[in-house]
Amino acid sequence: MKILLQFPEGLKQHALEYAKKLEEGGDEVIISASPTFGACDLALDEARKIGADKLIHFGHAEFMHVDFNVEYVEYKIDASLELLPKSLDYLKAYNKIGIVTTVQHVHQLEDIKRFYEQHGKEVFIGKPYGFARHDGQILGCDVGSAARINEMVDAFVYFGGGLFHPVGALLATTKPFLVVEPFANRIDFIDSYREAYKKRSKGRILSALYAKSFGILVSTKNGQYNMALAKIIKDRITKDGLNAAILVSNTFDFDSLNNMMEIDAFVNTACPRLVTEDDERLRKPLTCLQYIRL
Amino acid sequence: MKILLQFPEGLKQHALEYAKKLEEGGDEVIISASPTFGACDLALDEARKIGADKLIHFGHAEFMHVDFNVEYVEYKIDASLELLPKSLDYLKAYNKIGIVTTVQHVHQLEDIKRFYEQHGKEVFIGKPYGFARHDGQILGCDVGSAARINEMVDAFVYFGGGLFHPVGALLATTKPFLVVEPFANRIDFIDSYREAYKKRSKGRILSALYAKSFGILVSTKNGQYNMALAKIIKDRITKDGLNAAILVSNTFDFDSLNNMMEIDAFVNTACPRLVTEDDERLRKPLTCLQYIRL
Repeated sequence: MKILLQFPEGLKQHALEYAKKLEEGGDEVIISASPTFGACDLALDEARKIGADKLIHFGHAEFMHVDFNVEYVEYKIDASLELLPKSLDYLKAYNKIGIVTTVQHVHQLEDIKRFYEQHGKEVFIGKPYGFARHDGQILGCDVGSAARINEMVDAFVYFGGGLFHPVGALLATTKPFLVVEPFANRIDFIDSYREAYKKRSKGRILSALYAKSFGILVSTKNGQYNMALAKIIKDRITKDGLNAAILVSNTFDFDSLNNMMEIDAFVNTACPRLVTEDDERLRKPLTCLQYIRL
Repeated sequence: MKILLQFPEGLKQHALEYAKKLEEGGDEVIISASPTFGACDLALDEARKIGADKLIHFGHAEFMHVDFNVEYVEYKIDASLELLPKSLDYLKAYNKIGIVTTVQHVHQLEDIKRFYEQHGKEVFIGKPYGFARHDGQILGCDVGSAARINEMVDAFVYFGGGLFHPVGALLATTKPFLVVEPFANRIDFIDSYREAYKKRSKGRILSALYAKSFGILVSTKNGQYNMALAKIIKDRITKDGLNAAILVSNTFDFDSLNNMMEIDAFVNTACPRLVTEDDERLRKPLTCLQYIRL
């Protein structure tokens, strides 16, 4: 069988090892070297181009059904829980705690919950909006597990790697937000990002007010493609006598967008995190409308 | 008709204007925002995903036939020839001159030839190897118009924008190489790049000598896809008891390649210019075998 393997960035270091195992079993194996942002971002174009019989996608659960033979291999990591006792020092003032994590650590949530309960906390685990699969799990585009329990809790705890995931949840909530990062061995409240982001967001919206030409971003990624929404946005803009064009790409290149000198403001219908992660790489404001699902 | 427009970086600034014209004629128009490196790099995946009836590709002549409705719109620029008299100061020691340019200025080559002839030079215009369409034209992957006349000339003159094109021709030739750049209003011999590149190239090859694991790059771009060559390279490497994997992507992302920590050296079968332009962005050596066409 001809198989294309796709790994998120953190797992690409094990790609050859895994390919070798499959080849020893008689399969023909090719590895996608493209960046991968989630199960919304399957390497389907590559799989079709090389004539693969199957795509094996590592590190994420299924996001949506696609018309291709895809095997999803979730990747669980048993991260050290050693930081939890120290995290209690940060949580003294808060009794009701909402806990969230990424798919890699979802299986550790029960242990984390038990730990905090044993230390007198009331622990809440929310349900995702729908793209994430597990209670307490957050994705770049689904922070329901945090947002839905915002009113019930005094503070949030994110357990896991990096800042990409907790920042998404932070922006959809209003309570103190503690990150417990077992890989970098750090514990920090990240609430200051909330204010900084709001200021930037306001600035973007204000500077888009005088735009005459809009570029509406549509990603061709399987789980981000939203041409229907883009067309509605374009119609509304052009009805106001302004200029608009729909711009497609798989992974948007910010140099290429910046080369479109006629455009005064961009509107995003792709991954919502483009706006929080990448807007500073654009010379023109980028606003986000992808939450409207049509 | 639903049309996808694709522009190289320098023409993206006119994308909306062109889209508007087509829309006024009743077409539905969407613009590719991806980087575009030539007619080897058609936005076919995007065109198919959005269900386009036609792809209009600007700025390059047809590179190879593809199974899609593609219209090629060459883009001619009448660049100022004002620098030519000054260029004679640089060419005093050379009687036989080979002239090359990009597709945008091919129509100006006859005027340039006549100018130098009127000033006592013997002028040569070479034939491309096959990917480029016009005599005297060079592409990133076809510098035949220069290389084929290397032995006949005393010096080369490249007329046109940027350094990307002349550097490719420089590396395939041995004579003094003058760039006459009408947009930046500059005239320079670029021969020093030749030595610098050769040193870097030697360093790359030496540091790949001890590699145990190889990543063989295959681009899915229509005019760069060379899976047959990649498989032969992989077979040869693995027969020597070393490890190799074929890595596919459309436009290679160097951060993603760098994340493949198991790989000691990369072998390129895609655009030859990856090696001259981008190798310094890789933490491991990148060598080039794409010239072997199978």
